Amino acid sequence: MLLRMSTLFLRTLREDPADAEVPSHKLLVRAGYVRRVAPGIYSWLPLGKIVLENVATIVREEMNRMGAQEVLFPALLPREYYQTTGRWTEYGDTLFRLKDRKGADYLLGPTHEEMFTDMVKGEYSSYKDYPVTLYQIQTKYRDEARPRAGILRGREFVMKDSYSFDLDDDGLKRSYEQHREAYIRTFERLGIDVKICFATSGAMGGSASEEFLAPSPTGEDTFVACHNCGYAANAEAVTTPAPAARPGDRPAQQVLDTPNTPTIETLVNHLNQAHDLGITAADTLKNVVVKVITPGAKEPETLIIGVPGDREIDFKRLEAAVAPGEPAIFEAEDFARHPGLVRGYIGPQVLKELGIRYLVDPRVVAGTEWVTGANEPGRHAVHVVAGRDFVADGTIEAAEIRAGDSCPVCGSGLSIDRGIEIGHIFQLGRKYADAAGLDALGPDGKPIRITMGSYGIGVSRAVAVLAEQRHDALGLAWPREVAPADVHIVGTGKENQIEVATRLAEELEAQGVRVLLDDRAGVSPGVKFKDSELLGLPTVLIVGRGVSQGVVELRDRAAGSKDEIPLDEAVARVLAATR
Amino acid sequence: MLLRMSTLFLRTLREDPADAEVPSHKLLVRAGYVRRVAPGIYSWLPLGKIVLENVATIVREEMNRMGAQEVLFPALLPREYYQTTGRWTEYGDTLFRLKDRKGADYLLGPTHEEMFTDMVKGEYSSYKDYPVTLYQIQTKYRDEARPRAGILRGREFVMKDSYSFDLDDDGLKRSYEQHREAYIRTFERLGIDVKICFATSGAMGGSASEEFLAPSPTGEDTFVACHNCGYAANAEAVTTPAPAARPGDRPAQQVLDTPNTPTIETLVNHLNQAHDLGITAADTLKNVVVKVITPGAKEPETLIIGVPGDREIDFKRLEAAVAPGEPAIFEAEDFARHPGLVRGYIGPQVLKELGIRYLVDPRVVAGTEWVTGANEPGRHAVHVVAGRDFVADGTIEAAEIRAGDSCPVCGSGLSIDRGIEIGHIFQLGRKYADAAGLDALGPDGKPIRITMGSYGIGVSRAVAVLAEQRHDALGLAWPREVAPADVHIVGTGKENQIEVATRLAEELEAQGVRVLLDDRAGVSPGVKFKDSELLGLPTVLIVGRGVSQGVVELRDRAAGSKDEIPLDEAVARVLAATR
Repeated sequence: MLLRMSTLFLRTLREDPADAEVPSHKLLVRAGYVRRVAPGIYSWLPLGKIVLENVATIVREEMNRMGAQEVLFPALLPREYYQTTGRWTEYGDTLFRLKDRKGADYLLGPTHEEMFTDMVKGEYSSYKDYPVTLYQIQTKYRDEARPRAGILRGREFVMKDSYSFDLDDDGLKRSYEQHREAYIRTFERLGIDVKICFATSGAMGGSASEEFLAPSPTGEDTFVACHNCGYAANAEAVTTPAPAARPGDRPAQQVLDTPNTPTIETLVNHLNQAHDLGITAADTLKNVVVKVITPGAKEPETLIIGVPGDREIDFKRLEAAVAPGEPAIFEAEDFARHPGLVRGYIGPQVLKELGIRYLVDPRVVAGTEWVTGANEPGRHAVHVVAGRDFVADGTIEAAEIRAGDSCPVCGSGLSIDRGIEIGHIFQLGRKYADAAGLDALGPDGKPIRITMGSYGIGVSRAVAVLAEQRHDALGLAWPREVAPADVHIVGTGKENQIEVATRLAEELEAQGVRVLLDDRAGVSPGVKFKDSELLGLPTVLIVGRGVSQGVVELRDRAAGSKDEIPLDEAVARVLAATR
Repeated sequence: MLLRMSTLFLRTLREDPADAEVPSHKLLVRAGYVRRVAPGIYSWLPLGKIVLENVATIVREEMNRMGAQEVLFPALLPREYYQTTGRWTEYGDTLFRLKDRKGADYLLGPTHEEMFTDMVKGEYSSYKDYPVTLYQIQTKYRDEARPRAGILRGREFVMKDSYSFDLDDDGLKRSYEQHREAYIRTFERLGIDVKICFATSGAMGGSASEEFLAPSPTGEDTFVACHNCGYAANAEAVTTPAPAARPGDRPAQQVLDTPNTPTIETLVNHLNQAHDLGITAADTLKNVVVKVITPGAKEPETLIIGVPGDREIDFKRLEAAVAPGEPAIFEAEDFARHPGLVRGYIGPQVLKELGIRYLVDPRVVAGTEWVTGANEPGRHAVHVVAGRDFVADGTIEAAEIRAGDSCPVCGSGLSIDRGIEIGHIFQLGRKYADAAGLDALGPDGKPIRITMGSYGIGVSRAVAVLAEQRHDALGLAWPREVAPADVHIVGTGKENQIEVATRLAEELEAQGVRVLLDDRAGVSPGVKFKDSELLGLPTVLIVGRGVSQGVVELRDRAAGSKDEIPLDEAVARVLAATR
């Protein structure tokens, strides 16, 4: 189908939309691919719809190739399914909830584990039926607190989600590996650069899990990579190697006056000057109080986290560590309810007594010695030894990660980058099978509890990711298989150029090339060139004044190259470029 | 992609689902195409998903062929757009409404007139931009009071909706005609028999409108057809020809005692016996009281409808006539609030005085003479002449239609049938353009108000309609282009039949034929044959015991024919059958 710009429902914009901050958002709106309807809710214009469909087709083909079978679930789902697993509550405000005319509770599906589990339970019964992998490409809904960046983090979005069902852990591992390979192929075909990172499980409740992060400065995820051993992980999943505690006896703990030391820095300076301790911020133990709100719980829990004083708490790592609970700031009024906590001078020595849960950074191993609060205003304790003077209730990965931190695998220095989560593969295990009672009847007549994996690709997000990874100052630059057309033929001039351009377009279409033809009359060459750069088709053929001398110009959008070629070679050259 | 039943996620059922009443519902569930999730909300299993996609592809191709351009809107929409046109309220309980985490009002789109109007307003400004036709294939939501018949009337369903935007009425007529032709082609390709019927506009608020009804005994719509002049109309849209009033003077009205005449029949008998009037039920005027609830109005309105006594009120025609108001029964407590209305003896003579709106059947023209209630218990009035003794506030098409009623075009007798609405084309006019202020700047610099058409095809419903129109006692019988595969190759037997079947399947796939292969081991031939009849692929190739003699069986599902053919001709014969 020849796309003619003279009639195409497309108006490009010269200005960035006022609400846009990231390149993909600016460019997809300016180039007329998407339009905003509400926060995090977008419409797709014709060229955008084609790109979205091209992405979906690649994803579908690769899922089919690995033997997954396509189904389609509704988006409007009754509460019961999500009640059984607790997610009706756990999802908190992120779930869109509504009632039907009879007052029954419904939700808009944010993900479909429960539904797939129920479907397999409805159809399959024998161990002979398994394994099976099902998927759908479907519209999902999440009431994000911070929808952002156009279609990058929307509240209504298109996702491919698949689920594997296996009889045993080895089967699950095979299904997981198959998905991993299928995802690598998929992102290769899509032209998206990805880094496969270890991931935490978030609210999904399972074990092994990896994220496909598309490196991008606008990414919301932070990941580390080790250039020595290849380890890569989402910052939320990075584990901190525990140091060996220095052997030998330690002095008894001692409480010192530390007046006017509101910061770690002033505290360290004071102790080194007044007591010649020779410490750094890393020798202090900072105790941060937070509230954790667990969906469905009546009261938030008070939690104190101990981290070395040279590190901040990373809120995203903290969120991941306490999920499905949500951490919140411990306010002045909360302190008022806990008179035992002396703000600014909290030390772990009294927390057992106060009955407050205390988790520490993995660096706080038994036998390490710390400077920390003495639970009295204006005083700190030194020679406080973990395991001797206090015992934590466990460890928590909540301290910030820094470039140069030790790789947990090989100990080399880690690098840090930003990325966009575009895929996620996840060995769920038996959580949902347990909730639904999904068993297969085994060869011995005994039930076998099924084990599951869940796997997602952001289909609409992939469009934004491609725009993030492949653009320049002039506009977009789509990879061929995803582009709305293979070639953009631009006719410019007042003689027969548009006729010639149309003839070339029709010839190429007849040969199976997908063509966008700029056949607009009365539009200046400058505007047409700008549009072609903005729209970002991989190959551009300019049919301009040179036509009278039998010359046209072939451009490669990504490379930025321009080539004068004979008009009568144009079809062959475009064919060569597009194959 | 060869579909192998040995691994296909498909389990057929021998029993009809308990909640199913119509054939399509029973068969689509039994054949494993769809599964119920909630009332009016279904999932699609692999074969069903393929059929749904095949329908969507045909619809898309025909829309593209007519020059319509595909876009995609969200389903989750902010209230504002529907507030402007009043439909936020007008849609009543049929609209799924919800709030986001900030308390803002949203709805799940039941149809997208407002959104398309807004989109065109955002992109286009000059008369040179027009005309344009946009469409989407998208999931829609309506909280039906009576979801029924599986996917036939769902609460979540897939629809193609398109909208034309023109500068003038002639343009709208052209766009309407183009859609009409595209729909005829579409339903031909889909293999759906349709009758194009004049339609009322329902809640859409426009003028010319036709429905594509698929004749089916399970249809919810009633339509009439004239076999003389070709007129066809949804019963809701049928107009009643007004009779000529008999000329000449009439006796003055007279009130008679009519004791023990609770029904029209007893009244007619009494009057003929006691007063020798020689009347029939058609000479009586029955006055039916209803309430009309207008969305957004505080109080329901009382409405009295006068129809000849030999006809009942057709509630669906009444609904259509008072839309967007909704008619409801006038209860005993409502009568208690209107002491002027003498239940069972209401006559129109006093309604002006009582201030109650009175609408009559078109047969009640000025000068016609009626027997009707005398507004006193146990008494009726005779010689009551319309226009003399009472004046109605207007006419209403609410009386039942009967086979043999006069065609409003040529006067011949009408036939009556049932059908399923599968498409609707509609000259909307300027209602939505007025609400949004959608103008084009004309050549003279003056604004031109745009005029619109709206056009729908039920994509998921089409799957059910095909199942209704094309099935027999054994199962489904899909038309080729919609079927999940072209040919069902069934290998049965314990020798090499499944191997031979697989080889044939692979050969045919390589030649572009879509194949479903029954390669299940340990399943009896009887079960396999039953499944092949239930699943309903157009061509079936049985590879059974005959293979050792070089013979296979070719079946045509729709025709029910069976043909023994040489094994070495099987590929060629299947190819011939499928092309």
